[in-house]
Amino acid sequence: MSMKTVSTAKSHGGIQGVYTHASASCACDMTFAVFVPPQAAEAPCPVMWYLSGLTCTHQNVMDKGEYRRLAAELGLIVVCPDTSPRGETVPDDAQDWQFGSGAGFYVDATQAPYDAHYRMYSYVTEELPALIAQNFPADMNRQGIFGHSMGGHGALTVALKNPKRFKSCSAFAPIVSPSTSDWSKKAFERYLGADEDAWRVHDACLLIEDGHRFGEIMVDQGTADGFLEEGLKPWLLEEACKKAGISLTLRMQEGYDHSYFFISTFMEDHLRWHAQRLA
Amino acid sequence: MSMKTVSTAKSHGGIQGVYTHASASCACDMTFAVFVPPQAAEAPCPVMWYLSGLTCTHQNVMDKGEYRRLAAELGLIVVCPDTSPRGETVPDDAQDWQFGSGAGFYVDATQAPYDAHYRMYSYVTEELPALIAQNFPADMNRQGIFGHSMGGHGALTVALKNPKRFKSCSAFAPIVSPSTSDWSKKAFERYLGADEDAWRVHDACLLIEDGHRFGEIMVDQGTADGFLEEGLKPWLLEEACKKAGISLTLRMQEGYDHSYFFISTFMEDHLRWHAQRLA
Repeated sequence: MSMKTVSTAKSHGGIQGVYTHASASCACDMTFAVFVPPQAAEAPCPVMWYLSGLTCTHQNVMDKGEYRRLAAELGLIVVCPDTSPRGETVPDDAQDWQFGSGAGFYVDATQAPYDAHYRMYSYVTEELPALIAQNFPADMNRQGIFGHSMGGHGALTVALKNPKRFKSCSAFAPIVSPSTSDWSKKAFERYLGADEDAWRVHDACLLIEDGHRFGEIMVDQGTADGFLEEGLKPWLLEEACKKAGISLTLRMQEGYDHSYFFISTFMEDHLRWHAQRLA
Repeated sequence: MSMKTVSTAKSHGGIQGVYTHASASCACDMTFAVFVPPQAAEAPCPVMWYLSGLTCTHQNVMDKGEYRRLAAELGLIVVCPDTSPRGETVPDDAQDWQFGSGAGFYVDATQAPYDAHYRMYSYVTEELPALIAQNFPADMNRQGIFGHSMGGHGALTVALKNPKRFKSCSAFAPIVSPSTSDWSKKAFERYLGADEDAWRVHDACLLIEDGHRFGEIMVDQGTADGFLEEGLKPWLLEEACKKAGISLTLRMQEGYDHSYFFISTFMEDHLRWHAQRLA
């Protein structure tokens, strides 16, 4: 597996890089960002996976997430994948920001023509981890995962399905119930088909209902988030975790919205939470 | 003087806002960003002016500068103006990123047709400060100024010309000698005319040569900055300050480039430096 370096820059004592590779899962070139902290010069470092939200690429959190200072202090590699396959050969719906480019939802599509490219679940759980293990000073026995909004959904579902691989999981304003959220129902139908049973393995609340477990989860949610009621509904996750006996730390953050102004504010808390569990 | 709120968002306990107003200096609408820290609820706060570099708007540092955490901790208002007038009525040279839109160089143009709009010196030293004083909980007796590249040039020249107004001045990779820098000579000629004597009041090294003084200055400069030799030449500032007896702290930062990956790394040092002097 080979990759190409798009750019590297020193930042907070580490290296922020951007890379591309020909993805087999997505059948297109994929771009991703990796921050390598200074500690990696001495020994392999734990890996944090940050999954981004709708309309984002690898770049939004790289520009606005304010994670490098802490990652450099705590000795964490931070990997930021793109949110969907992209390119001229990739079917898309340019009119719909909740489907297609920028809206992969971290599922493996089963419906034509999307199944040929929209395989973000395999991409972020198999192909990209193998590439990272091969090309970066990563301790793959210590991985944590977090994300924002659609990427919060991604982090929760990936962690619930791979509880042994990830030692820690958190989310900023995640879509906890994509099967019922206005933001995702349409995309799920087009990627996964009309039979909602097939959606359950990509829905955090339903995964928990179906017996999947994860040690403990932290979620931050802004109270001024305009998408709280229709798209996010963190109380559904709270209910599911309560029933299942999963330890959920849900923090309602007064006055914060859905943007990176919110994420960057609580980035430090999340990275410290993960670092403790990855130590 | 009235202004319009474009957006506000809570961040790091304070409010990051974006505003527009009809600028008399620039004869067009101007957009700027202001971060107000939580301490402003109790008492007026010191004001930090951040002047941005070529091609930037108010937004680049707002997205990538990582200043809010520190400004919230230290109780600093941070004002980020745009870098030039903009709009359909404003003469521009779309082919040249070193002139026109995004390249105001913080001078008052004297040459037609640019003199009708390109009055960024008056804008950042008179008009915008008056607007800030009127509309924000700002302690205008405690102001500091800093900036990047073209904005570092702006910060140095504005501070040298207004040493009583500003209690602190620093810069990231500033253009210290715009009269000789490849980056600025052409713009100076078009804004200020061919007579280089008129350029001296907008050139940090020449202002010092002509007797202007500022208490102490801090400059960070990356050693891997591709523009070091042609555009920036910090050793010229070092020489000028040495001759004039100005205390300059010039820190050559090993391996850092000209980007916000560099700026965000040292943002904390700069804001702490200013806060000490604004206390």
